[in-house]
Amino acid sequence: MDERVREHAEVLVDWSARVEPGDDVVVSVAEDAHELGVAVAEALGERGATVTTLYGSAEVSRAYLKGAEAGADGDGDSDGDGVDGDGVPDFDDDPAVDRAIFEAADAYLRIGGGRNTTASADVSSATRQAYAKARKDVREARMDTDWVSTVHPTRSLAQQAGMAYEEYRDFVYDAVLRDWEELAAEMSEMKAVLDAGEEVRLVTERDGAPDTDVTMSIAGRTAVNSAASVAYDSHNLPSGEVFTAPYDTAGEAFFDVPMTIDATRVRDVHLVFEGGEVVDFAAETGEDALAGVLDTDPGARRLGELGIGMNRGIDRFTDSILFDEKMGDTVHMAVGRAYDACLPEGESGNDSAVHVDMITDVSERSRMEVDGEVVQRDGTFRWEEGFEG
Amino acid sequence: MDERVREHAEVLVDWSARVEPGDDVVVSVAEDAHELGVAVAEALGERGATVTTLYGSAEVSRAYLKGAEAGADGDGDSDGDGVDGDGVPDFDDDPAVDRAIFEAADAYLRIGGGRNTTASADVSSATRQAYAKARKDVREARMDTDWVSTVHPTRSLAQQAGMAYEEYRDFVYDAVLRDWEELAAEMSEMKAVLDAGEEVRLVTERDGAPDTDVTMSIAGRTAVNSAASVAYDSHNLPSGEVFTAPYDTAGEAFFDVPMTIDATRVRDVHLVFEGGEVVDFAAETGEDALAGVLDTDPGARRLGELGIGMNRGIDRFTDSILFDEKMGDTVHMAVGRAYDACLPEGESGNDSAVHVDMITDVSERSRMEVDGEVVQRDGTFRWEEGFEG
Repeated sequence: MDERVREHAEVLVDWSARVEPGDDVVVSVAEDAHELGVAVAEALGERGATVTTLYGSAEVSRAYLKGAEAGADGDGDSDGDGVDGDGVPDFDDDPAVDRAIFEAADAYLRIGGGRNTTASADVSSATRQAYAKARKDVREARMDTDWVSTVHPTRSLAQQAGMAYEEYRDFVYDAVLRDWEELAAEMSEMKAVLDAGEEVRLVTERDGAPDTDVTMSIAGRTAVNSAASVAYDSHNLPSGEVFTAPYDTAGEAFFDVPMTIDATRVRDVHLVFEGGEVVDFAAETGEDALAGVLDTDPGARRLGELGIGMNRGIDRFTDSILFDEKMGDTVHMAVGRAYDACLPEGESGNDSAVHVDMITDVSERSRMEVDGEVVQRDGTFRWEEGFEG
Repeated sequence: MDERVREHAEVLVDWSARVEPGDDVVVSVAEDAHELGVAVAEALGERGATVTTLYGSAEVSRAYLKGAEAGADGDGDSDGDGVDGDGVPDFDDDPAVDRAIFEAADAYLRIGGGRNTTASADVSSATRQAYAKARKDVREARMDTDWVSTVHPTRSLAQQAGMAYEEYRDFVYDAVLRDWEELAAEMSEMKAVLDAGEEVRLVTERDGAPDTDVTMSIAGRTAVNSAASVAYDSHNLPSGEVFTAPYDTAGEAFFDVPMTIDATRVRDVHLVFEGGEVVDFAAETGEDALAGVLDTDPGARRLGELGIGMNRGIDRFTDSILFDEKMGDTVHMAVGRAYDACLPEGESGNDSAVHVDMITDVSERSRMEVDGEVVQRDGTFRWEEGFEG
């Protein structure tokens, strides 16, 4: 076994999930994530934890949903939506076993890494939504555990990234096997700036692309130092971003990093904000998919997140939000739902059924100001060598 | 997908487990059993059941146990056996998640089919036993569900059987895809004979091998018509045997079908019974492993089972008890634990920590008598064409 697989398992178990002896840990292993699953099980055994292993197979899920669709044909209006025989299954909204699993679990480690990132492409969105709705309690119980999501590098993910397999493995381990303590310390500087600040302004100037010049309020909001550990309210490995929940956004923003929304490739998104809302938008490709997101509900036109990527182990875009949004020299904004951790106790932030991140490259001709002072210019932070205020 | 995979899934879900709409079904998928896992998930979706998928990986289990052994080194006498640093892990005897899973489940479908039948060969038996002991409650909760154990044909199982992969696939589907209703009807004749009978005598005569001439009492015992369905108290797919719990065994029995006990190959076992107990024994190879079984506890020297194989879809031995003991033209006896289903309500049969099946070929020069009347001669039953009483 590649020694890096073992190191990945140790970071996941010790730094990210903070597993203690006696913890009940649930591990979900995707189809081609076997090797990391083995390494994680060994580490959990060594720590004196108890382990339950789920099979996180996208092909099994797809088969179940397609079977349910076939079973729902002509079953009458079982889902109570007034349409008979519409082929949308009526899922049990008390999935007792899955609820029991997450209610009993202390930690949940999700290891992605399937054989086909589009394995569920032919399941209707109505079926997906019905399934997600029926599993709200399971999702909430899962979020109440010390959960961490990571991926084992697979050929399928390498393909999605447009990379050779060995090259992609190097990429993943460069992102995951970091000195997280050191990165957390650096990110705490960014968090301090955002926590103390009241207004953020981001400006970029590029030839042949719309300029970004957008301001947003962050007064009263708390930034999350997302250092890939539950101890930091951070649930992704890799992580390496500082994010907060902005409001009252105004101006224009241009996102030059390609992304995938509902299996549609979306490029070069341009958003115009007035009074905190998107009032105009465009995309070079995939504009319909973007429109679909923005029209989901009123909250989908407001920002739920401003994030600053600070993981310089990630040096390229791979069409995976787990990595892309944490890349050094990038800033991302998400339309939709805000994270509770950024909000004052008891206050609810922007509410929406969606949360879609959009990324902009800030490595050149850009600056981010907090309360009028430049914090990052051309990718370099104020506390770094070579910074030109 | 091979159509036989789908048919296997349908037999498992409908005939074996009798899954109903709304059932909470747990499916365990071994490393190379993905394809059958997909087909089973589709069938469960179609039936309106809810599904949870476990990853039944022998390599993950082995890694966990080896990790626990490493973690137990020098942990003091944590398992309370008076030996410090003996390397035997002290497993949590309340594995909350696994217990919750089986307490909430209606049915449990275990799909075997790994990549290496000796994947756990280097885990010490002390560690295995400690783990099994800590999981007694989980095992009991699991046995309280409608559980069924089957296998997906894999290359590893083909190798264990000494067969080519395609040849082994044909073998498995011939055994599994039967007219179970018809076989259950035929087996009910054998069950009726055993239920009404008081004494069974088995006689075989072979050149160059010890003769079998053994009698046992079955008065008051109930035979199980093991027709591969929970509706028949039968939990294996394939099945196809009728078994009961004999006592007061006397005489000699010779078992010519090779078997594997604790990874040791055992051949040509000869047992001598007096007053219900094994008083002498021999084996051509593996006699030490046989001795280890018989010395486990007092019950290990008494029979717990007499079984008559009646699945003629199984036409050869494959070193897998799931198949071997159900083969037509075979009879098996197990030393050790008896099944409750064979005993009068409230009565406990032979008690033992072991249950080891041994098989004898009855296709030639053999006869089985019940109360002095021949029921099977040279493999042919009384109700079959060509039977010579």
